[in-house]
Amino acid sequence: MTASRRSPRISRRGFLTGAAGVAGAGIGAAAVGFGVERSSHDAEPARQTLEFYGAHQAGITTPPQSHANYIGLNLKDPNDLGTLGGILTLWTQDGARLTRGEPGLSDPEPELATAPSRLTVTVGVGPRVFATAALADRRPSWLAPLPSFSIDRLQERWGQTDLLLVTAADDPVTLAHATRILTAAVRTIAPVTWIQRGFRTARGTQPDSQTQRNLFGQLDGTEQPPRQRDDELIWNDGADQPWLAGGSSMVIRRIEMNMDTWEELDRGPRELVMGRTLDNGAPLTGTHEHDEPDFEKTQGGIPVIPASSHIARARRRADHEQYLRRAYNYDDGVGETGLIFSTVQADPVRQFLPSQQRLAEHDDLNEWTVPIGSAVYALLPGATEDSPLGASLLASVGTASGVAAGG
Amino acid sequence: MTASRRSPRISRRGFLTGAAGVAGAGIGAAAVGFGVERSSHDAEPARQTLEFYGAHQAGITTPPQSHANYIGLNLKDPNDLGTLGGILTLWTQDGARLTRGEPGLSDPEPELATAPSRLTVTVGVGPRVFATAALADRRPSWLAPLPSFSIDRLQERWGQTDLLLVTAADDPVTLAHATRILTAAVRTIAPVTWIQRGFRTARGTQPDSQTQRNLFGQLDGTEQPPRQRDDELIWNDGADQPWLAGGSSMVIRRIEMNMDTWEELDRGPRELVMGRTLDNGAPLTGTHEHDEPDFEKTQGGIPVIPASSHIARARRRADHEQYLRRAYNYDDGVGETGLIFSTVQADPVRQFLPSQQRLAEHDDLNEWTVPIGSAVYALLPGATEDSPLGASLLASVGTASGVAAGG
Repeated sequence: MTASRRSPRISRRGFLTGAAGVAGAGIGAAAVGFGVERSSHDAEPARQTLEFYGAHQAGITTPPQSHANYIGLNLKDPNDLGTLGGILTLWTQDGARLTRGEPGLSDPEPELATAPSRLTVTVGVGPRVFATAALADRRPSWLAPLPSFSIDRLQERWGQTDLLLVTAADDPVTLAHATRILTAAVRTIAPVTWIQRGFRTARGTQPDSQTQRNLFGQLDGTEQPPRQRDDELIWNDGADQPWLAGGSSMVIRRIEMNMDTWEELDRGPRELVMGRTLDNGAPLTGTHEHDEPDFEKTQGGIPVIPASSHIARARRRADHEQYLRRAYNYDDGVGETGLIFSTVQADPVRQFLPSQQRLAEHDDLNEWTVPIGSAVYALLPGATEDSPLGASLLASVGTASGVAAGG
Repeated sequence: MTASRRSPRISRRGFLTGAAGVAGAGIGAAAVGFGVERSSHDAEPARQTLEFYGAHQAGITTPPQSHANYIGLNLKDPNDLGTLGGILTLWTQDGARLTRGEPGLSDPEPELATAPSRLTVTVGVGPRVFATAALADRRPSWLAPLPSFSIDRLQERWGQTDLLLVTAADDPVTLAHATRILTAAVRTIAPVTWIQRGFRTARGTQPDSQTQRNLFGQLDGTEQPPRQRDDELIWNDGADQPWLAGGSSMVIRRIEMNMDTWEELDRGPRELVMGRTLDNGAPLTGTHEHDEPDFEKTQGGIPVIPASSHIARARRRADHEQYLRRAYNYDDGVGETGLIFSTVQADPVRQFLPSQQRLAEHDDLNEWTVPIGSAVYALLPGATEDSPLGASLLASVGTASGVAAGG
């Protein structure tokens, strides 16, 4: 545990080594996607920490950890803003401690907190938080359920909740413990509705900058926005809702993948469905993963990349249609296999929805994938030691927390 | 992929560095428990492999990987020994390939096989395999359900199956893929009944020789048999059933842990329940984890380690009451938390059952733990390239596989 107390004013969570660093890793990736952030990356993996405090929450542009728990909770009384403030203050205190490798404030298993393993704790709020009169005019315009799509087979058990808590770490025991501490502390006032447990390849299996594969074997997340444009594409600028400046939004789509029928396809057809090769993810018109797809190219009069393929349908029609993909695999029960497709963007309606609508209208891949869960959250701005999560949201609404946090 | 083809006659999976190596790691552990086995441990973690072929199956005394899937399958027709032989041959072929970092024989996602990450594939058979006349006299005398215990609240969904497949690896994507390949290949003849997914701390968080903690925060698995006695305590000697020489047995108990009520206890009472301290696992009469507990010691006339505590009840009454613990944590759904308590021993009735009976009669810990699943399997002897898993079991029983495998 190397965590030192820094002044919140000068603490900066992320140090982005930038394009040169990424290219230097020899991956040939463009300066897109997740940066190489660090707080204590010189430490051995189990001791590595990511700073909790900062202008933005950790766990949003952070290179994804091996394991993540997406946790949906509902407030017993969404009108009780004092309780909401209490929850967010508690998550701030315990989040800051646990991510440093320290036990939670009243942690019954302090020994399980000693290997932070890049733990992050990230918090969002759902639409119902703004249903109460005091917050009605603070709702971001885009914070509402996505329109329903004909491809959806949504199950209520994976639906929208009032609160989102995302815990993520490279060590599954650390993660289980952090999840336990943060959820047990609020269980009488905000019980857990669902937990979606996701995984990616173990830390160290491949460089952070390399695109990972989903359980269909596809490289998943090739298209990522350039990190240089985070302030525009990821972080809310506060123009619509000043309290949200430095926050963001997260869409969580739970997508079941039908392994049995997918595996009936030969490799050629599977590549046509995607528009990319399976081996290195290159567009069918290129040779490397990050080659620009050529949707005009034909062979014998037929487009090399089918117009109905996943990448042809997904590709952005406008520059602003960019969002960060943070996908995790899930593999639960017997044959419950799929993807927790979570995306981050400043404005989901403007940046995410257009491509989602095109994919819902038609995407060859839809035959093997079924969205079974959908939810949208406002990710809160970052906390400092003086100002807990949600302070700007609850400022001057007449609650104890709001007053304490205001200013 | 550094796997080289070796002659099965000279291939030896495990190279045990032994007591000196373990002590040299500075952990202060006795030469008990899991050895430091290696096949390709000089490679980076994702490329490390454990040899599939050998006198014994891998994954039994192998230091536990971070993730394991315990998979129970039932044969559609347990009388069809030809089909059983086919399944075991297929698992041998694909097990040998996947554990080397090579795709399965007809692997739809070969790219997911490239990071073996110490993958092991381990196979056992349940009692119903011996219900058919041809195998009736090959049933090991101990291969039967454990007697029912008053503490049990067994759920049929976690019950005995015909076949056991254990896949384990340090990378969760590699593991999901191997599980998929091995189960999909047999799904029409041996569908999966349950999968129990378990985890331990991530590879590298702590040395293999160090005892891990369960989700109650207890050091779990301090008592392990000395590796020097594997031939006596772990490996079947073939005296009862010659075909099983080199095999073993596995008991799998799924034990739900009630986090809510456990966490209501203060630290002192929790330590009295166990008979060990929470911080370093030392018996309450000692200072280090591996100190011998002194059950006679009293303070003010009261035993320091309560006679009803877990370690007082569990401790062996005879030298042969020793077995290897391979416990994995589970954390599923909302609040489904516990331990996949799997044990390995040459004879479960002689070695495991006595302490299990004592614990069922009384163990202070029983108030917070509930066994909800129980199953017993014979772990097959190891395979060679000439002789697949189950060859000795099925030899000369008049099936195609049996004939092919015999001799």
